[in-house]
This record gives sequence, C-alpha cells and structure tokens, in this order.
Amino acid sequence: MPTHPPSGAAVLQPEVTASIVAAVLAELVERGYGRLAMEAVAKRAGTSKSALYRRWSGKQEMVLAVLADISVPMADVVETGDLRRDMRAAAESMAAWLAAEPYAKIIPDLIAEAHRTPALAEAIAVSIAKPRRAHLRSLLTRAIDRGDLPADTDLEMAQDLVAALIYWRTVVRQAPAEPHYLDHVTDTALRALRATRTDTRA
Amino acid sequence: MPTHPPSGAAVLQPEVTASIVAAVLAELVERGYGRLAMEAVAKRAGTSKSALYRRWSGKQEMVLAVLADISVPMADVVETGDLRRDMRAAAESMAAWLAAEPYAKIIPDLIAEAHRTPALAEAIAVSIAKPRRAHLRSLLTRAIDRGDLPADTDLEMAQDLVAALIYWRTVVRQAPAEPHYLDHVTDTALRALRATRTDTRA
Repeated sequence: MPTHPPSGAAVLQPEVTASIVAAVLAELVERGYGRLAMEAVAKRAGTSKSALYRRWSGKQEMVLAVLADISVPMADVVETGDLRRDMRAAAESMAAWLAAEPYAKIIPDLIAEAHRTPALAEAIAVSIAKPRRAHLRSLLTRAIDRGDLPADTDLEMAQDLVAALIYWRTVVRQAPAEPHYLDHVTDTALRALRATRTDTRA
Repeated sequence: MPTHPPSGAAVLQPEVTASIVAAVLAELVERGYGRLAMEAVAKRAGTSKSALYRRWSGKQEMVLAVLADISVPMADVVETGDLRRDMRAAAESMAAWLAAEPYAKIIPDLIAEAHRTPALAEAIAVSIAKPRRAHLRSLLTRAIDRGDLPADTDLEMAQDLVAALIYWRTVVRQAPAEPHYLDHVTDTALRALRATRTDTRA
C-alpha cells in the first residue's frame, strides 16, 4: 500500500512508464488482451498497481494508450508530394507496423477481443484507427488537390485499399510483404483509384 | 466408458455429428479456440468424448473439419460467365461468410490463435484458405480465357483483392458490407485488375 505523501503523486517517472509499457506489450503477446491483468503488468514492470492507476483509469485505457502511442505516429509518413512514392511509403509503414515483433501477435488478438467486447471495438476505433486514417486521408486529399487523383475519389475506399491488402496478406494469410509485393500493392491501389499518374518510378 | 460391441464402432450417426458440429461452433463462439476442450464439446452435444474421437483425431482436426465443411462450399459461387457478376457474387459470398452469426466471432479468434500456434496456421491454409481460393482462381482463370482479364493478371493479387477489402471492412473495422459497398468493391477490384469490361450492369 503506498504511503508516500500526496506531493509525490503527480510525478510520473519516465523510466517507470517505460517499464510499464514494455510489460504491457509482453503480457499482450504472452497472455492476450482477455487474460491481461493489472497485477501481472505491475509485477512484470517491477512497480505497483497504483503506479498503473496513476497513469491510466484501467486496463482498456492503459492498453490502448500504449498501443496508440506507437501505432499512430507510424502512420504519419513523410510526404514527398509524389503520389506513388507517398502511397508506397504508406504501404511500407503498414507492413512495418504489422511485422514489428509484438504487433504481429497483439493486433489480431485485439481484433478478436473487439468482437467479444463492443466497448473495446469503439475504443480501438477512436484511439488507433481514426488517427491513423487521418494521416492517410490528408495525404490523399492533397493528391486530389494536385490533380493526381480524381476529384470524386472515394476517400474511405482509398484509405482501406492498401491497409486491407497488407492486413489480409500478413495477418490473415501470414505471407510476407516483401519490397516487390509493396510495389505491386501500390500499383494495384493506384489503378483502382484511377490515379492520373500511376508510375513515377525513377 | 463405452461398452458397446465393436460392430457399432464404425457407424457414425448423422444426428450425433450434427449435435457435435453445433456444439463445436457454440464453444468456439463462447470460449474461443484456445480454451475449447473436447470434454466440453461432448457434454454440450450430449454425447461422449469417444464419439468425437471416432470422427476426428483431435481438437485441431475437429475444429477445422467443422469450419471447412461450411466455409469451403460458401466460396463456390454460381458462375455466370459475366466477370462483373461473378466478382460481385464472390464479394457477396465473402461478406455473407464473415457476417454469418458464428463466424464473425470465430474467424478473428482463429486468426489470432494461428499467430500463437504455427501448426494451426498451416492447417487453416490447407483446409480452408486453399480450397476457398481454388474456387476463385478457377473463376478468374476462365475470365482470362474469355479475354475479360489481361493474360498477365496476377492471380494471387486478384484472389486477395475482394477478400482483403471485405475482411478489413467487416472484421477489422466492424463496418457493414451493404449491397452498395459490395458494388463498389467489385468495381474497385475490376479497375485494379484492368478488366476489359468493368461495367456490365443491366
């Protein structure tokens, strides 16, 4: 039981946060979201449950904050203004996200759990999917402004295309997303979206 | 302990099989693949564990046989020879499969489990994915023969496109696949595949 004076309660030590983040990821890989317990995370991180609750209100908030902090910036690709290059970068970032050691196991487990727990599905949409999609949406919007995509481009479908193909291939089919495959996905998506310039490879 | 004479051992009663199939699906929905136990399936089906082992060698074989028996025929769409109609039918059958009451919960759980258990991933590929893809592959091959798709069509990508978009939308994003969306997926896929006739709607 913590007996520290209240003055210390607001100070969140970064190294403790880092240990907790690593513990959350490890527990998600080993036990999955459904069986993840705050007690086990605290023990693994070498801290107390109260250290967790000082940071997050509970398990769902903690897990999503940890995953969003890593997942959302990964979707923010450096834009060159060349649609093919930018779409290729988006494809590569999606593949890198899903191939990264913890995520290959964590994401499909989280999706499965979201079908048992509607509140979790909503929270994933708000903390991870929407901000990730916002990055891609602004990239696509600027391509429309430049005239590289038709003005009537369906942005929802455009945002889905690359992500869907890479998720299906790497997560569902467990096939690799090699550079050649990422080129192919990019070209396929640009054709589907009726991009006006579909091949700008140097 | 079964004390029936051996003469009865080879007879598999269809109504017992049907009860077991229903029990397997219910247990997969409620507990998921990881926690599914032969004992619980037998109890739920009102039969004995030996009735299960007379039919399948174990849990993995049982679950995949039950799922394949339903999932594989669903991918065998009635072909009209009109590529757009056939792709639309393939899209609808994929959406119907994933929207069917038990599958919406069972498939994402199975995919998550496959990332923990490599042997399960291989068994899913062999019993479900490959035969489902074979149906689509022959449909696409005949479209190439008719000249409705280019001779150099990448069949792997062509098989992935519709399935990937519908899986991403319905399973990952939990958005509905309405008829209008299925039309849109079909048109998008046909454009991506450079179909020579992309709009044959009556």
